[in-house]
Amino acid sequence: MTVINNQKIEHLKTDKTKVKRAPKRGHYDTRTIYKILDNDFICQIGFVYNGYPVVIPTIYGRKNDCLYFHGASVSRLLVTMEEGVPISLNVTQTDGIVLARSAFHHSLNYHSVTVFGHAELVTDEKERLDALKVVSDQIIPTRWEEARLPNKKELKATKVLKLKITEASAKIRTGPPKDEKDDYDLEIWAGVIPIEKKYGKPIADPDLKSGIPIANSAIKLIKD
Amino acid sequence: MTVINNQKIEHLKTDKTKVKRAPKRGHYDTRTIYKILDNDFICQIGFVYNGYPVVIPTIYGRKNDCLYFHGASVSRLLVTMEEGVPISLNVTQTDGIVLARSAFHHSLNYHSVTVFGHAELVTDEKERLDALKVVSDQIIPTRWEEARLPNKKELKATKVLKLKITEASAKIRTGPPKDEKDDYDLEIWAGVIPIEKKYGKPIADPDLKSGIPIANSAIKLIKD
Repeated sequence: MTVINNQKIEHLKTDKTKVKRAPKRGHYDTRTIYKILDNDFICQIGFVYNGYPVVIPTIYGRKNDCLYFHGASVSRLLVTMEEGVPISLNVTQTDGIVLARSAFHHSLNYHSVTVFGHAELVTDEKERLDALKVVSDQIIPTRWEEARLPNKKELKATKVLKLKITEASAKIRTGPPKDEKDDYDLEIWAGVIPIEKKYGKPIADPDLKSGIPIANSAIKLIKD
Repeated sequence: MTVINNQKIEHLKTDKTKVKRAPKRGHYDTRTIYKILDNDFICQIGFVYNGYPVVIPTIYGRKNDCLYFHGASVSRLLVTMEEGVPISLNVTQTDGIVLARSAFHHSLNYHSVTVFGHAELVTDEKERLDALKVVSDQIIPTRWEEARLPNKKELKATKVLKLKITEASAKIRTGPPKDEKDDYDLEIWAGVIPIEKKYGKPIADPDLKSGIPIANSAIKLIKD
């Protein structure tokens, strides 16, 4: 563990998380890993089910060194994870298409995180409610304060799990293409086409009561 | 198999691909599945390695009922897949954040595809080269015609695999939130915030020879 600007930074490199291909693109510090996780809210979780691998997309929220997941109590993903089976999850943001002069050196700019571990059921009611807020805040901050909060029946129908982030890695590619030396003389354009993710203009529910102004959380989200 | 508008449509529902949660969101026809696959180029592949699940993002291209993958010959993902182990892959596009009046009914609009199967190594040189073009076209059409094509050494360093799409499902959510009947009277804004993915202005390689105009493939991509 090191401390930079009062932030504790853990290093999560293990045999499992060591980046095999293009090791220079690998990062193992929690600062880099958390930043990528915080920039997204959907991950793909892999687990072994009846001997074969299953990959399922799901929403998450991060708080400190934990990822939280929620869903219907009967969800196969959550019921399987609850058993404490090994899971692996990946979050990938594509940032740009990298056009090299040679087909071979075409690439992608991206930020990606992989986490290995075991999830566990959250049973404490306070932690459960806090976790649901964490997930909500991950997607759209302050919406939790605007919405009608879950009642007993809804809480009963909801399962919450957490995964402590102890084994993880980030893999990042940025910058221009890298071509073979001789190819720089070719009359071929090379560069990067950025991929941008933006929020569009909010669409009101057709059944919205008249006179209700658009939510502040939505205004803030599309401005940021 | 059914035929609509001269298009053969297969149904890929099996015990494995049957959508368990929210079964109404499940689709099993190749028309729906291929459309989602064609709208993207990055997937998350899951496989079992030393007994634990691994999820790795990778680029793909689709041609007919096959998905093609490529990478360095020494890539762990490709070397493992080449052995014919069971794999699962997922492609997910997030289309919008669904804000309901109740926290419980918040949701996500998305298009998602899951495929199960076994990949196999492509060894025929013509099919290998064709597959590399398929993957290139999936990311940026016509770029293959502009770039310096792979030489013998580069082809030797590249592995190509294919996965026949025989077991798959799509899961889709669209439209406004659905709240509990009583909640429609609440003074809470509800609706959808669209998530839009766009290409930004291409950034030329700092080492680009002067006088080379931006590639047609890039112009077309950002216009579409």
